[in-house]
Amino acid sequence: MADDVIADLWRARYRTDPPAGGRSGDDVLRQLLSHRSVRAYRPDPLPDGALEAAVAAAQSASTSSNLQAWSVVAVEDPARRARLAALAGGQAHITQAPLFLAWLVDLSRLSRLGVAHAHATDGLDYLETFVVGVVDAALAAQNAAATFESQGLGIVYIGGLRNHPEQVARELELPQRSMAVFGMCVGHPDSDRPAAIKPRLPQSVVLHRERYGMVDEAAGIAAYDQSDAAFQREQGLAPRAWSDAVVRRVAGPESLSGRDRLRDALAALGFPLR
Amino acid sequence: MADDVIADLWRARYRTDPPAGGRSGDDVLRQLLSHRSVRAYRPDPLPDGALEAAVAAAQSASTSSNLQAWSVVAVEDPARRARLAALAGGQAHITQAPLFLAWLVDLSRLSRLGVAHAHATDGLDYLETFVVGVVDAALAAQNAAATFESQGLGIVYIGGLRNHPEQVARELELPQRSMAVFGMCVGHPDSDRPAAIKPRLPQSVVLHRERYGMVDEAAGIAAYDQSDAAFQREQGLAPRAWSDAVVRRVAGPESLSGRDRLRDALAALGFPLR
Repeated sequence: MADDVIADLWRARYRTDPPAGGRSGDDVLRQLLSHRSVRAYRPDPLPDGALEAAVAAAQSASTSSNLQAWSVVAVEDPARRARLAALAGGQAHITQAPLFLAWLVDLSRLSRLGVAHAHATDGLDYLETFVVGVVDAALAAQNAAATFESQGLGIVYIGGLRNHPEQVARELELPQRSMAVFGMCVGHPDSDRPAAIKPRLPQSVVLHRERYGMVDEAAGIAAYDQSDAAFQREQGLAPRAWSDAVVRRVAGPESLSGRDRLRDALAALGFPLR
Repeated sequence: MADDVIADLWRARYRTDPPAGGRSGDDVLRQLLSHRSVRAYRPDPLPDGALEAAVAAAQSASTSSNLQAWSVVAVEDPARRARLAALAGGQAHITQAPLFLAWLVDLSRLSRLGVAHAHATDGLDYLETFVVGVVDAALAAQNAAATFESQGLGIVYIGGLRNHPEQVARELELPQRSMAVFGMCVGHPDSDRPAAIKPRLPQSVVLHRERYGMVDEAAGIAAYDQSDAAFQREQGLAPRAWSDAVVRRVAGPESLSGRDRLRDALAALGFPLR
């Protein structure tokens, strides 16, 4: 990791020096380490071809058994974006960014193929196939995110699209057996309100060798609580311990922004999750 | 998309010419479009620092509410890789590639933090939080995949790690509330058995504008059945219609390689999925 840019990005992410090692610089790694979620956008439209390039990258990601169990809906209409923003908990950047992508678990296409081939597709009813669709959609979306960012655009994922899955499905006219698993805002970052690189847990906490280990966990989280609080202060936010904030975030059904009813919502959308 | 390399990669993926447009060449896009799943590896170990660089990229991906609800177990021990290969349906490349990564949905860390803070974490019991973990793990893994590939290494995702989730959890000594959602082989591709770029569905089938649409679907799938069959022939495999193959793959519980019991397995691993 000799490259100076990569070393600086490593320090921003981990607040430690990068490990010694012979790796030379690398455009892809530099780009991925540079990610920051952008929540302030200029209204200018995307460059021609940017969406198609991102979708080509998305489709180049792995997909389980080549099922290609995902789709994406590209929303530009400002009125529709405003309605989706309201459904996602009133996130202003959805109305501000020129493009909103709804990433779908899409088993409906396979269901239609089953009808066309007069063949049963009962496997679609199982939790396993839903998981395949979630993983497929996420791998695709992450390739799209990297491609947008490599073009100087910014993105932010929108989990709030799961707050009201049935209403989102109606808005996007989704067929049964498809659901919007997350959204993504895409646009030109507003350089007056730049986003910063958020620190993450030390690698010793998330990377395990041979077996799951917890030896380094408490010390690693204590160090991270410090670097995350420092980041909050730098951003002019109230400092708080990460470990306390995340525990509150998963305290109970009332802390899930309505998503505690996701299982019922999925059943209504055609995912019995056997 | 003026870049000749990108144009060639586009043709390999879609079997059509790329759209006209002013985009210039781009290392990140070129890299992502170049993906192919590698199932034949040389035994040489990874370069120093390759895993740490990939994990840094993985941790740089977005994570819902910064929960960082994933972990990864790096397995190099040949005996353990052989046991995991057997659990994943006897996939020889798991024993062949020098590194196997088990990507975990990891809610166990949040559970331990709840205990340490004497705070309820009942939100972990909901399907929503499991979905957060699956998405977090997949976004992280895809950044790792791109980083490995940018270093000249090859990867393949292993969904077969869900064939026997409890046994995999025992092998990796996973705590309750964590599970290996997929695996990944990593190594130097065997240049004697090179992998090819697999075609995908036309963009018109997976990319929808404003609302979900099916107008172009039947023609797009018919065209894809042709290009996929051509690819199969080029690879010396029996040609078959993609649409027929995928329908058979999701025919029923018996076609899911044991993963029809994923819901029970998850319950046993501490995911009630309320």
